[in-house]
Amino acid sequence: MQADRVRVAVVGYGYWGSKHVRVLNAMPDAAVSVVDSNVARLREVAAAYRSSVELLSTDLDEVLDRVDAVVVATSPATHAEIGLRALRAGKHVLVEKPLATSVAEAEELVETAAANGVQLMVGHTFEYNAGVQHLRRIIEDGVLGRVLSIDTARLNLGLYRSDVNVIWDLAPHDISITSYLLGELPVAVSVWGQRSAGPGHEDMAYLRLEYPTTTAYVHVSWLNPNKVRRTTVVGDRRMAIFDDMSDNERIRIYDIGVDSADISNPQQAHEMPVSYRTGDIVSPFVPFPEPLGVQDREFIDSIRSGTRSSTPGERGLDIVRVLAAADQSLATGMPAPVLPGLHVVGARAEVES
Amino acid sequence: MQADRVRVAVVGYGYWGSKHVRVLNAMPDAAVSVVDSNVARLREVAAAYRSSVELLSTDLDEVLDRVDAVVVATSPATHAEIGLRALRAGKHVLVEKPLATSVAEAEELVETAAANGVQLMVGHTFEYNAGVQHLRRIIEDGVLGRVLSIDTARLNLGLYRSDVNVIWDLAPHDISITSYLLGELPVAVSVWGQRSAGPGHEDMAYLRLEYPTTTAYVHVSWLNPNKVRRTTVVGDRRMAIFDDMSDNERIRIYDIGVDSADISNPQQAHEMPVSYRTGDIVSPFVPFPEPLGVQDREFIDSIRSGTRSSTPGERGLDIVRVLAAADQSLATGMPAPVLPGLHVVGARAEVES
Amino acid sequence: MQADRVRVAVVGYGYWGSKHVRVLNAMPDAAVSVVDSNVARLREVAAAYRSSVELLSTDLDEVLDRVDAVVVATSPATHAEIGLRALRAGKHVLVEKPLATSVAEAEELVETAAANGVQLMVGHTFEYNAGVQHLRRIIEDGVLGRVLSIDTARLNLGLYRSDVNVIWDLAPHDISITSYLLGELPVAVSVWGQRSAGPGHEDMAYLRLEYPTTTAYVHVSWLNPNKVRRTTVVGDRRMAIFDDMSDNERIRIYDIGVDSADISNPQQAHEMPVSYRTGDIVSPFVPFPEPLGVQDREFIDSIRSGTRSSTPGERGLDIVRVLAAADQSLATGMPAPVLPGLHVVGARAEVES
Amino acid sequence: MQADRVRVAVVGYGYWGSKHVRVLNAMPDAAVSVVDSNVARLREVAAAYRSSVELLSTDLDEVLDRVDAVVVATSPATHAEIGLRALRAGKHVLVEKPLATSVAEAEELVETAAANGVQLMVGHTFEYNAGVQHLRRIIEDGVLGRVLSIDTARLNLGLYRSDVNVIWDLAPHDISITSYLLGELPVAVSVWGQRSAGPGHEDMAYLRLEYPTTTAYVHVSWLNPNKVRRTTVVGDRRMAIFDDMSDNERIRIYDIGVDSADISNPQQAHEMPVSYRTGDIVSPFVPFPEPLGVQDREFIDSIRSGTRSSTPGERGLDIVRVLAAADQSLATGMPAPVLPGLHVVGARAEVES
Repeated sequence: MQADRVRVAVVGYGYWGSKHVRVLNAMPDAAVSVVDSNVARLREVAAAYRSSVELLSTDLDEVLDRVDAVVVATSPATHAEIGLRALRAGKHVLVEKPLATSVAEAEELVETAAANGVQLMVGHTFEYNAGVQHLRRIIEDGVLGRVLSIDTARLNLGLYRSDVNVIWDLAPHDISITSYLLGELPVAVSVWGQRSAGPGHEDMAYLRLEYPTTTAYVHVSWLNPNKVRRTTVVGDRRMAIFDDMSDNERIRIYDIGVDSADISNPQQAHEMPVSYRTGDIVSPFVPFPEPLGVQDREFIDSIRSGTRSSTPGERGLDIVRVLAAADQSLATGMPAPVLPGLHVVGARAEVES
Repeated sequence: MQADRVRVAVVGYGYWGSKHVRVLNAMPDAAVSVVDSNVARLREVAAAYRSSVELLSTDLDEVLDRVDAVVVATSPATHAEIGLRALRAGKHVLVEKPLATSVAEAEELVETAAANGVQLMVGHTFEYNAGVQHLRRIIEDGVLGRVLSIDTARLNLGLYRSDVNVIWDLAPHDISITSYLLGELPVAVSVWGQRSAGPGHEDMAYLRLEYPTTTAYVHVSWLNPNKVRRTTVVGDRRMAIFDDMSDNERIRIYDIGVDSADISNPQQAHEMPVSYRTGDIVSPFVPFPEPLGVQDREFIDSIRSGTRSSTPGERGLDIVRVLAAADQSLATGMPAPVLPGLHVVGARAEVES
Repeated sequence: MQADRVRVAVVGYGYWGSKHVRVLNAMPDAAVSVVDSNVARLREVAAAYRSSVELLSTDLDEVLDRVDAVVVATSPATHAEIGLRALRAGKHVLVEKPLATSVAEAEELVETAAANGVQLMVGHTFEYNAGVQHLRRIIEDGVLGRVLSIDTARLNLGLYRSDVNVIWDLAPHDISITSYLLGELPVAVSVWGQRSAGPGHEDMAYLRLEYPTTTAYVHVSWLNPNKVRRTTVVGDRRMAIFDDMSDNERIRIYDIGVDSADISNPQQAHEMPVSYRTGDIVSPFVPFPEPLGVQDREFIDSIRSGTRSSTPGERGLDIVRVLAAADQSLATGMPAPVLPGLHVVGARAEVES
Repeated sequence: MQADRVRVAVVGYGYWGSKHVRVLNAMPDAAVSVVDSNVARLREVAAAYRSSVELLSTDLDEVLDRVDAVVVATSPATHAEIGLRALRAGKHVLVEKPLATSVAEAEELVETAAANGVQLMVGHTFEYNAGVQHLRRIIEDGVLGRVLSIDTARLNLGLYRSDVNVIWDLAPHDISITSYLLGELPVAVSVWGQRSAGPGHEDMAYLRLEYPTTTAYVHVSWLNPNKVRRTTVVGDRRMAIFDDMSDNERIRIYDIGVDSADISNPQQAHEMPVSYRTGDIVSPFVPFPEPLGVQDREFIDSIRSGTRSSTPGERGLDIVRVLAAADQSLATGMPAPVLPGLHVVGARAEVES
């Protein structure tokens, strides 16, 4: 029954867009259309999905009237313009991360959604990742003790040419993950960036995110021999690693179990151990539904129920503020403050001002 | 024949000192004595080596007259004082890294050695590590192409209490390795450091080393769930990883083999590959003698032949200059210049200024 | 244009069946129908694919008249009956491995296909796996030297209840792989099997496959803590491992580079090395299209062109003969001969008898 | 005080002999002499240990009168003759595994030790390995439930030429480990062996050890690209892996936590999971003293106290019986019974028959 289905147009059939199409098309209560300026890609959709997708078009305007919602999966620089067009037409919108490429754009998206009374959601997939959610839970439960620092690495093999630098491309994930884990937002950002391959964008960067309670360090790169997706949380009781590249041990928890006084007085000097590990390591079993599926499910549900998603536009705006501060630090070589605004962390929204 | 043997006193029978004793004691042309203020440790030596070591004493002065050379393996803050005492007594000296804990001390060591016409050597073990040497060779041979950046991680599980911070404890290795690989010294250093565990020393830090031709990033920590010893060299033709934790694949070379134009136009959008690797990975066989053995062999040889070692005092001083700049950056939050001086890189000594 | 498309019914929408549907449905020149006795599964198909699939039915007879070809992806014991029904109706048939659960059934399938002049293909996916194909190529090119032995492990975590034992469930892959690599068939089989969990089927087994030129050892299990998919080929010049669990290093080639005379006379006795490796390890880059896609593409192509596939029914029969010999060895505790018949190895068919 | 020290002659300064010398020489209550027919090796000892070792000789007879005990670390075929010579001279004897190369020899060793009232011990190092001991403890405590099977792999890279085949060279460890874990001895053995490199000894073998309560499978090889040292215990509640190649995770325990009924009815057919793991994985912290040190300490203690070690000669004889049965199976191609005799498992000795 068509009437029962939320009609969604996915704009941009690239790496992420094609995943959205697959995931949404498998939902019985969603009807998918696809917009892409490249006809060859639309032909791909037609070949892969045939009549199961509703409309295929190179022009969003052709489709906009005939859908309830839009997923914006184009290149970052176009997020705002396409998102705004959809919001103004009264459509619910899910925008891939980053929500926009400037704070002003992101604010306009948030305001326009509010003015039109529609849902605006940002695609921070990792906040729907069962591994990250498990890690947040054990932090909240005090399993790790006080968080001393977080260290993340998101490294790729191969250069992605893009309209943004590696920070806007990859760091949204790590800012989203670390702020989600801590339940707070960074107040300042320092950046070391590098353009290895000439005059284009930064292809490698380190970020220092100063959170109210701790510090997170983020390493992003397009130029690394191995693909790395790792978040290390150092607590004063235990440490944990979230490794998104591991199929069956995404979360490992390390009991430090070390008495530092003992360390400095090893019984026999020359027997200083290779490793000071003296506690167990546990890989808890964590059921792992596909994060994009969970996220897009919540998008459809938020439309049907009228309740806000866990990652509404304000959450996307928060992360864009941090990215903008990173840009500023990159330009000045100094730490840059993150300007306050609407803060939404996880499911808990609180308006500052 | 005693007369043929170089008589060496190892001062400090801790983690490194005990290794020096083992390695030197196995050389037919070295006769080892041990000095440690802790009698229990001397008893350990006696139990382990019996009469094969010459003298055991809690007092360096008791021993100094009866040896030709001294290995200083005490805590860093005492390196200069003990080293100077030995040099002034006309003894050849090998000092564990770092050579000293200030530039002034390091300079005094270098000058005193020169004034007394004796060998001064610094224990930069990794410059005697066959894996690092292999990596330098393939860089020099152009195998990796132009070096775009170097990234290192030296992370420990467990807190080492010490008289220096984690930078002076662990980063000497990474500064030594990266400058050895590049054949040049950093001109400026930036540091992000953190004291996680209260008012003591920094236990975690990131360093950015600005070399004339490229940039190296160094991550050191006493607080990481896994022990990591990794140097990643990113070239524009190939990348290489030196992993000192791997028994049989210390060096891996990654052929990037990627045409970035192809990447941005994948044939089918949704088939964007998980990894862009399109080239071979090679783990060359590298025979691996124990680096400390190679280093201490060179110390004994330099004494016997009168020729300078590959890592003379000046080399240690160079690294101390970088560490001092790191301290300055830590204090100011700004990049700190590395002041010029005697520059010795690898076996090639050149006096600047 | 419907007329241009090969109409295929996939029978059995389980683990493999669902993959066939996905892969075939993405081919522009195939039109997919699905048959499954379980209505709930048909609803899944409807939800996931909607109108892009042609027919959904619980009854093969309803569908048979309206398709050109059938993929049999039901449980092994039903392969023969369903396959025969389709062949007798003049349909081209692809049967998942094993082709049948007895030699008589497999022979009847082969004969029926011939009698009806239609294609019969068996789903030996690994013969379409680029990693296995690469391994075969380097064996043929003499890179490994003479093959001394092959060792495989196919181990799962968790008990699959099934209508066959673990040998018929998992070993078809390893028999297919090893005979494909060697270009010959085993002449005898010995088996050690075990029923760990009571009176049901064997859940763990070792097979020794005696090939004319070498021996292969196959370990299959439903009860292992880790999932393992590994084929080790030991040559007298080099060794190679095919690891299907590795994303980016499926093939690794080990240069032995060892002179055994040197090994027995190490210079210093106590320096016997931890590893005798003295050669390089190479992970060649091997582009990796999804094997099932390559296989099903060849099925559709064979129907359109009228040429036999690389794994025709005779190839499936060959493997069933080996499995039947394994059953016999299991029953007698003695090596069992593999009875000769139509031998097809890779693309090369040769009639013995 | 020399009088307080147990005087031990280590016979054979090869791979294992040199380890015994190092370990014993570090004990304050042992005085070490070394016997080796190769003068060059004695020179090595002299260089490495100097005066800390007592006597160096190419002739055991020269030394025998002046020691209390002998460690036999020569090649297996000479174990019995040298061991008997020492026992008959009233010396305590530790023989490296295997105790002897025939049951008759092993029995004679055991009887001779008894007749002379001296200690006879066999060097089953793994029974002194803290990882193996931990594994035995969790089996005894029921952590794994009922043991369904054990699977071991001991694979080397490189050909060791030797006076025995790979079974006598490597499998003593696995027979010792599995019987120690289970607290019982195999009643029958089946073997598949292979001579890959010509007319010499078997260089690769599989053993099936039929224990009263379960079955163990042992894979040994001199020809494998990777060094493997792995014991997998499959229980009906949990599984465990002992990996002696892992520095800091020697023991991993896998909670299966699987309800097989659930497995066969996955909610959605196509979502059949990659892995059925549904339980946690735990790597317990296990302090790890060097096993050879623990073993040799027990040898010295048994001499001083007059109490039998955990691995007396009878234990070595038990393993030799299993090895002899393996030889028989290799010759006949049939399972061979293990003839009963003195059975000693772990510390518990019981005389049968």
